[in-house]
Amino acid sequence: MEFNTTTYNARRGELMKKVGRGIILLPGNGESPRNFEGNPYFFTQDSTFLYYTGIQMPDVVLVLDCDSGETILFGNEVTLDHKIWMGDTDSLVDMGQKSGISKIVALDRLPKYLAQHSSPKVHYPPPYRAEHLLLLSTLLGVDVNGVPSGMSPELVHAIVSQREIKSSDEVDGLEEALGTTKKMHENVMRQAAPGKTETYLMGLVEQTALSKGARTAYSPIVSVRGEILHNFNYGNTLREGQLLLGDFGALMPSGYTGDITRTIPTSGTFSTQQKEVYQIVLNAQERAVQMLQPGTLFKAVHLAACTEIVEGLTNLGLMRGNAEAAVEAGAHTLFYPHGLGHMIGLDVHDMENLGEEYVGYDTTVKKSKEFGLKSLRLGKSLKQGFVVTIEPGIYFIPELFHHWKSTNHPCSEFLNYDKISSYLDFGGIRIEDEYLVHEDGGRLLGAPIPKQVQEVEDIMSS
Amino acid sequence: MEFNTTTYNARRGELMKKVGRGIILLPGNGESPRNFEGNPYFFTQDSTFLYYTGIQMPDVVLVLDCDSGETILFGNEVTLDHKIWMGDTDSLVDMGQKSGISKIVALDRLPKYLAQHSSPKVHYPPPYRAEHLLLLSTLLGVDVNGVPSGMSPELVHAIVSQREIKSSDEVDGLEEALGTTKKMHENVMRQAAPGKTETYLMGLVEQTALSKGARTAYSPIVSVRGEILHNFNYGNTLREGQLLLGDFGALMPSGYTGDITRTIPTSGTFSTQQKEVYQIVLNAQERAVQMLQPGTLFKAVHLAACTEIVEGLTNLGLMRGNAEAAVEAGAHTLFYPHGLGHMIGLDVHDMENLGEEYVGYDTTVKKSKEFGLKSLRLGKSLKQGFVVTIEPGIYFIPELFHHWKSTNHPCSEFLNYDKISSYLDFGGIRIEDEYLVHEDGGRLLGAPIPKQVQEVEDIMSS
Repeated sequence: MEFNTTTYNARRGELMKKVGRGIILLPGNGESPRNFEGNPYFFTQDSTFLYYTGIQMPDVVLVLDCDSGETILFGNEVTLDHKIWMGDTDSLVDMGQKSGISKIVALDRLPKYLAQHSSPKVHYPPPYRAEHLLLLSTLLGVDVNGVPSGMSPELVHAIVSQREIKSSDEVDGLEEALGTTKKMHENVMRQAAPGKTETYLMGLVEQTALSKGARTAYSPIVSVRGEILHNFNYGNTLREGQLLLGDFGALMPSGYTGDITRTIPTSGTFSTQQKEVYQIVLNAQERAVQMLQPGTLFKAVHLAACTEIVEGLTNLGLMRGNAEAAVEAGAHTLFYPHGLGHMIGLDVHDMENLGEEYVGYDTTVKKSKEFGLKSLRLGKSLKQGFVVTIEPGIYFIPELFHHWKSTNHPCSEFLNYDKISSYLDFGGIRIEDEYLVHEDGGRLLGAPIPKQVQEVEDIMSS
Repeated sequence: MEFNTTTYNARRGELMKKVGRGIILLPGNGESPRNFEGNPYFFTQDSTFLYYTGIQMPDVVLVLDCDSGETILFGNEVTLDHKIWMGDTDSLVDMGQKSGISKIVALDRLPKYLAQHSSPKVHYPPPYRAEHLLLLSTLLGVDVNGVPSGMSPELVHAIVSQREIKSSDEVDGLEEALGTTKKMHENVMRQAAPGKTETYLMGLVEQTALSKGARTAYSPIVSVRGEILHNFNYGNTLREGQLLLGDFGALMPSGYTGDITRTIPTSGTFSTQQKEVYQIVLNAQERAVQMLQPGTLFKAVHLAACTEIVEGLTNLGLMRGNAEAAVEAGAHTLFYPHGLGHMIGLDVHDMENLGEEYVGYDTTVKKSKEFGLKSLRLGKSLKQGFVVTIEPGIYFIPELFHHWKSTNHPCSEFLNYDKISSYLDFGGIRIEDEYLVHEDGGRLLGAPIPKQVQEVEDIMSS
């Protein structure tokens, strides 16, 4: 999947049209130093800059003049020294050309340009790196503390309205990322076994991505302590009878990302208890997927998945009472404290840097502050072309259980604490896939990755 | 290797004594966002903060009051929410205790503390991340542009004087990193072969580190284009008859790093031409190692290695004339444009963030601005306890060759351009090991990693 100048010109043209007046300033990212400037992490381009230019080079700024239609890249050209040290890369002029931008200007001329073009307004997105705060403060002559509040909601709305609808080329990009992501998961499924370490399997995940020229899109979760939701430790050795939760995906050179979760039995087969809980999570995912449709509130999809989880846990005797009432009260959050999913694209949580109130919510659907719903990244009405993750889960989190029980949590009437206490060493299960919202419903993206109980057990024994 | 409270207390006590008066402010690092705040790169602690505390936690600041001897950690305690999401980690109080610090204060109280203790001076090291600029600007009430020049040379001198001398525990830490680094290199040597891709081998390097609970200490170089000195592309497939340059090392959980380079023949055996050049690089390394001794200028060691390279290339007919005169004129820099080595410890280029004029040079030895010498990171007199890399190389860089030849470079009298032009597809060779400077000379750190021609060919065929 290769985008061409027509694509980028069209995207930029539409953005200028939507914003209407003034200058649009989109700073690309710089290098991020680890312990000293000369030792950066691998480079990650700002995804909005990438969407409108396709340029993977640090320290370049895109300027669009909505009034004149002029497009300029401000950056510094590659030097001979750079070529000796870094190899023969495309010049900035070459990159501009591929992106359809012919006007390239040295970065140090940007402040003067902005001073001359600051009326009626300079639109910029909210900064999420300290380097952006400093750059914008310098460029605009504004105190650094005033930079965040000066961001342009019109610009953010315009960007979101373009980026949230994935073109078929973008869907190809996402499916390419899922191809590599599938290999990453299947390698873990084939190699996970008692005695193997989490570090070994995490290394396998990284190697599978790297050997395809990709990276991992975020710090992988590869853990027998799946109930720790953002567990970035890899200190355990797999033992018989555990569940291994793997949440990871590929980041392709194009910038498109993958985000898949699977939970597998370390022994190669699920115990009856594991199978029962696993099936509830699968059912919740299936119920959510059935509801995907343009016009449907994602918050409603989330709550339907919650209801499915409560019904399942009630059947197992862990919960009791009316399922809808339990969900209304938030009783499910003891087991499922996070949200059902988020958009995905050039970011794994697509456009999260632009602000959830613009990306996941809108004027009609506001984010809740309640435990559980406050972690739902997407609540608004679905549109054709959205790509979303559907990732229900059930976790037994001892700290949370003890906290609820000891404080006699208002939801206690829905909970059978005695029975739950016998599950406290269970761990956690999450199952996550990506779906494209199209006019008839939701379509699974990428080739299927083993997910049904039998499929998982089959690949683990292969 | 585990440091204890006695070590950290002694280090901090010595630092306060050396600085003498005022407040010492050592900010730890925060998380570094990739595309949005919630998706950071893996965490890297500031190495000076780590040296004086051992604490691997983001957003903590160490304050030492030289006048009263008081030691305070400013940071925010781990919450229940954090435990649910991130797992049961040590609290800040626990970490402080392990480090010998009992006074823990909330981060938001630091500005007031500093306002009350700003006299006679607040000493801080030079900032190298944008986040440090912002933090120091806020904490000290100084304009962000004034922060860099306000750093304390007295503090930097004191830190360097401690960190440059490695204790035996630190040497153990470095050798532990070299143990993993050896495995990383040997795995590549065993698997490199025509048809394998650089991405595959780079993935193998990462996996070997990760599976041992380590990380790579810097972006690995794994390339058949070894003449590109900082080549972070992995786009080639190995072909018969090439040289593969691998420059990578482990970063351990302790923070200690490894930095080893090997150059191996893709075919499993060196050609005669490759062997001839390889042996010159080995000889240059050996000549440098023989000179390691407390009191010897590292710049002199570098120049001796350059002389060895010129002598070798003269024997091959690529250079001509008097070797010392050629080195004096800088003729070797066509083949060897970088420096012989640098200190290594908690940073791979140890303390590079503190400034080369304090770390690698001093009042008697100033850094040269000449091509070649300007890339020498360490020039000053060696002391017992220094750990340094010794990494000579010979590269055939077509861009540089054509530039020198077409501009009739002043060093042309020393160069046989006709003969050199037949080597332009040779690539590059570098060989790098780490040495401890002790009273009798230099000691190789870590178990030897295959390096002699026969050793390399043996492991590749094993």
